[in-house]
Amino acid sequence: MCVGLDTDYRKIPTHLKSYKDPVFEFNRQIIDATHSYCVAYKPNWAFYEMLGSRGIESLERTLEYLPSDKFIIADAKRGDIGNTAEAYAATFFETYDVDAVTLSPYMGIDTIQPFLGKAGRWAVVLGLTSNPGSKDIEELTLANGRAVWQEVCLQLAATASIDELMFVAGATHGESLRKVRELVPEHFLLIPGVGIQGGDLRSVSSAAMNAMCGMLVNASRSILYADSGTSFAKAAAKEAQNLSAQMKHLLEEFCA
Amino acid sequence: MCVGLDTDYRKIPTHLKSYKDPVFEFNRQIIDATHSYCVAYKPNWAFYEMLGSRGIESLERTLEYLPSDKFIIADAKRGDIGNTAEAYAATFFETYDVDAVTLSPYMGIDTIQPFLGKAGRWAVVLGLTSNPGSKDIEELTLANGRAVWQEVCLQLAATASIDELMFVAGATHGESLRKVRELVPEHFLLIPGVGIQGGDLRSVSSAAMNAMCGMLVNASRSILYADSGTSFAKAAAKEAQNLSAQMKHLLEEFCA
Repeated sequence: MCVGLDTDYRKIPTHLKSYKDPVFEFNRQIIDATHSYCVAYKPNWAFYEMLGSRGIESLERTLEYLPSDKFIIADAKRGDIGNTAEAYAATFFETYDVDAVTLSPYMGIDTIQPFLGKAGRWAVVLGLTSNPGSKDIEELTLANGRAVWQEVCLQLAATASIDELMFVAGATHGESLRKVRELVPEHFLLIPGVGIQGGDLRSVSSAAMNAMCGMLVNASRSILYADSGTSFAKAAAKEAQNLSAQMKHLLEEFCA
Repeated sequence: MCVGLDTDYRKIPTHLKSYKDPVFEFNRQIIDATHSYCVAYKPNWAFYEMLGSRGIESLERTLEYLPSDKFIIADAKRGDIGNTAEAYAATFFETYDVDAVTLSPYMGIDTIQPFLGKAGRWAVVLGLTSNPGSKDIEELTLANGRAVWQEVCLQLAATASIDELMFVAGATHGESLRKVRELVPEHFLLIPGVGIQGGDLRSVSSAAMNAMCGMLVNASRSILYADSGTSFAKAAAKEAQNLSAQMKHLLEEFCA
């Protein structure tokens, strides 16, 4: 289980706003409350960037505070060419020193390449996402009979091993998730969309787990904003514990 | 003409490194040297993010310094769902207060929507890009006979007017650029790839100009790094002036 740190300043409990860095203080308490129940954290860059350089400072403090045994995914959805892609790879793997970063495949394999072959680092590429708009481009059928997202997965799986590449696959697509798993049997899948977006954890696990588990389920808002008052961290812990217990059962059931 | 502020700390002339904020000082001199020759600036977020919160501070200073009559494009290639896309729209149109931001269309129209309908602001969506990898996904043929990038352009042009939407179209695709213009006759095109990447300005203008000009040609490295020593600003001015003079002739020829 992965906890998404989509920390929106506007949604932080009022009593934290008197802290010098309310966003970091919120994250600190969320991390303390949830770290026993998750293996990964996924800060969503948008909510930090929205606050300008101050927000990036909150993010830097958060990254420093995260336990070193957790897998850290920068949710940033980048994708650009040559020297810019290399600058982004340096941004995430050196400056921020995270384990993985989400990327968009639209511009092609050469925009993903600079993120590959870095030992112990992963490119997490958008495959089939959980939003309604996934039908606009991702799900269109190509002349070769494949969907666009299938072509993305096939091209990338042929390029990069499971030690350097994962895919984003949305939890709201029950049957499609099974197709993702068939297409890329071994790569890890990062699965957002459980919780607020309505994905069902049991059908997701049944569709996407492989012998090595092979999936990382992300929950953000359902944990972060489980309570909007002074008990927010306690409520987050309860929510994370609950999700973690469900995951444990499902692991036993589908990944024995 | 648009000057791309792809300011790479590693490429800044040595004599600037003693300044308190070398990246800003470089940009300040580049802006002073080039503003008479261009209508727009396009900071490339990657090179500022690479330096963490300090880099974002250099970027903030740069944005503040840019002349208010210039059109400012954040080159950030974002693309995410619902509440994250809204956070990015707030980031670029409120926090950074730029006129336009580049976006990736992979996840669908609902990821572009939050950037539309903001008076005097533009979503600049990747259509057909200038890198070799554009053949991997963008140029694949769909079952309906269109290329993926054509589908992107058609869907978006049907959704958003020329007052809120532009497209990125690479200068390295001579004939394809003509096809982009046929498909979206009225939308402005942001055209990188002239200069270092080898796009030819004359064939680009012939293919992409419309009655309102309709294109913004971007040059970054060829201007920024025209000279690597103390004369860098003078060399940048010369390069920008040269490109601007060429553009003026081409405007008279193709957009009369």
